[in-house]
Amino acid sequence: MKKRIVLLPGDGIGREVIYSTKVILNVIAKRFHYTFEFIEMPIGGEAIDQYNIPLPEVTLEACQTADAVLLGAVGGPKWDSLPAPIRPEKGLLEIRKKLGLFANLRPVKSFSALLHASPLKEKFIKDSDLLIVRELTGGLYFGKPSERRNNDKAVVDTLYYERYEMERIVEKAFQFARSRKKHLTSVDKANVLESSKMWREIVKEKSKAYPDVTVEHMYVDAASMKLITNPSSFDVIVTENMFGDILSDEASVLTGSLGMLPSASIRSDSFGLYEPVHGSAPDIAGKGIANPLGMILSAALMLRFSFGLEMEATIIEKAVNHTLLDGYHTPDLHIENGRIVSTDELVARIAD
Amino acid sequence: MKKRIVLLPGDGIGREVIYSTKVILNVIAKRFHYTFEFIEMPIGGEAIDQYNIPLPEVTLEACQTADAVLLGAVGGPKWDSLPAPIRPEKGLLEIRKKLGLFANLRPVKSFSALLHASPLKEKFIKDSDLLIVRELTGGLYFGKPSERRNNDKAVVDTLYYERYEMERIVEKAFQFARSRKKHLTSVDKANVLESSKMWREIVKEKSKAYPDVTVEHMYVDAASMKLITNPSSFDVIVTENMFGDILSDEASVLTGSLGMLPSASIRSDSFGLYEPVHGSAPDIAGKGIANPLGMILSAALMLRFSFGLEMEATIIEKAVNHTLLDGYHTPDLHIENGRIVSTDELVARIAD
Ligand SMILES: CC(C)[C@H](C(=O)O)[C@@H](O)C(=O)O
Ligand SMILES: CC(C)[C@H](C(=O)O)[C@@H](O)C(=O)O
Repeated sequence: MKKRIVLLPGDGIGREVIYSTKVILNVIAKRFHYTFEFIEMPIGGEAIDQYNIPLPEVTLEACQTADAVLLGAVGGPKWDSLPAPIRPEKGLLEIRKKLGLFANLRPVKSFSALLHASPLKEKFIKDSDLLIVRELTGGLYFGKPSERRNNDKAVVDTLYYERYEMERIVEKAFQFARSRKKHLTSVDKANVLESSKMWREIVKEKSKAYPDVTVEHMYVDAASMKLITNPSSFDVIVTENMFGDILSDEASVLTGSLGMLPSASIRSDSFGLYEPVHGSAPDIAGKGIANPLGMILSAALMLRFSFGLEMEATIIEKAVNHTLLDGYHTPDLHIENGRIVSTDELVARIAD
Repeated sequence: MKKRIVLLPGDGIGREVIYSTKVILNVIAKRFHYTFEFIEMPIGGEAIDQYNIPLPEVTLEACQTADAVLLGAVGGPKWDSLPAPIRPEKGLLEIRKKLGLFANLRPVKSFSALLHASPLKEKFIKDSDLLIVRELTGGLYFGKPSERRNNDKAVVDTLYYERYEMERIVEKAFQFARSRKKHLTSVDKANVLESSKMWREIVKEKSKAYPDVTVEHMYVDAASMKLITNPSSFDVIVTENMFGDILSDEASVLTGSLGMLPSASIRSDSFGLYEPVHGSAPDIAGKGIANPLGMILSAALMLRFSFGLEMEATIIEKAVNHTLLDGYHTPDLHIENGRIVSTDELVARIAD
């Protein structure tokens, strides 16, 4: 098997965590006789420095002909004062939209070696294992008009969805629920928004094809509470773009190990973009102490979702888990009687 | 001093907590020689049963001529299957809009007697004392169009704000920050929404008149994380309607004492509507075990914000605190070596 993987290191610690991940993927390739071809391209601040735009045409083209994309992180103080259309984050929004990556997957699972770092009491967080499926290419993020009115006296943004956009994300979520604990929580604000009413109708329609999946409808405000008071009551959560942005970030801090969380942005074929949940952390960039686990676990998701390599994905996940249980970790984490090591040393342990 | 107070018991435990609160207000009136005139009116499910709409004209008129309104809670399974325009919650949205109550205030403070009930570890939650100022009459909640398009093939909701709506809420928030710890966090999504960009500009403009207040801008996704990882870093948070809905509910579960939290919805004059954060809890309604503290503390906010009775407000807050420290509480709470009492007995203790 041969796969073309575009690497988008981006900014800050993005570069370090991407290189760490390449090491691990090369181990997998060698061991199982796959060929992974890596093509490195600029995005975000790095691209702005070279091309004056956060997502250059060359980068987009490389992604379009690849089997999957690994993205490090974008952004940093250097580009913070640029006008919005050429800010690093714009590169993220554009690449999602242009590659049609409509489903953002954010698994949140507590690591037993790190439970003590959770802001939640152990009885609240333990056994949590949830997956947030966020719609990624519609809603308030892209709806038009989005403009000032009447000489800056008013302003409007538009929450716009096409029915097929809701249908395809809901469908995906049902499929994930079926492959997990068969419980789907659909989050909306149907007591206020017309778009949420349509969303709820679609979930009800689609649920007929998944009689084995239990469906629950929850308002977004209630969901933001229950994520804290009872995170282990969730299995798969599906919601629209803006609600998903807020809830998936809220969920990401529950386990106390943000630096470890992976994410995937996929579409209906097997192509996908994989990135850690953490940001570019410019303050620690280049020091060799970045935590590469979120990126490495994102690569595991790539093996699973884009290449169908379930066993190889699991091997990476287990290796990460064992390394933590053995006490090795970067300085952002704390493990009782553990040992702080550099990014490279941690990667070497996992590769082992 | 004479004040007309409209009581809107609403549904479920709304009635019990309103009557409890009346008892306490009568004690204050007697002790300090004020006259509180109470006028009871229907809202929510109760109003639907009587008038077929959740906010009858008579109720609205009574509120318009009153000095303040106390609201219990609305909603319940009985009315859950009604079409949206005559659902109990619609009464809430309408009364806010029609009375021009543009600022929703949600103070969140941890009670030392109840810290153990927080889902957060003590070191995360202790010393938290924040106030969320939510815009209540604009944004996605009321923007037009909000409709299906193209034969149900698409749907649109509109996030619309007038500049003056943003200005007045930001102004209010600065005033509260000035009277507290002089720290204001403005929450938006300025990396995506045009309305958030205008919001941020207005906050920057207004901040010039409050050089003593430190201003911080935060994206809504980041705020949803920081509320959990570092709630005590916040003082006053100001945000638009939908973000405020989500964040204030998220914040309300941090202390582990949702049943105790008050809220106020105010405008530029002294008029206001006060209600507990909890819902109508139909499962325990009529059993004499409802926790009246959220409603009683809401009445304290009424004394403070609408009637300028700071001392009397503080007396109620202290009485509640002492009663809890003495160990008395309703069955929804748990206090080590405490004593579970009925709603009436708890009220009697506080009145004492
Ligand atoms: C950078 C920003 C535009 C982006 C979003 O809101 O989608 C980010 O918060 C994310 O969730 O990936
Ligand atoms: C009932 C609902 C419409 C309402 C809102 O979203 O404003 C409620 O959640 C609240 O926060 O008071």
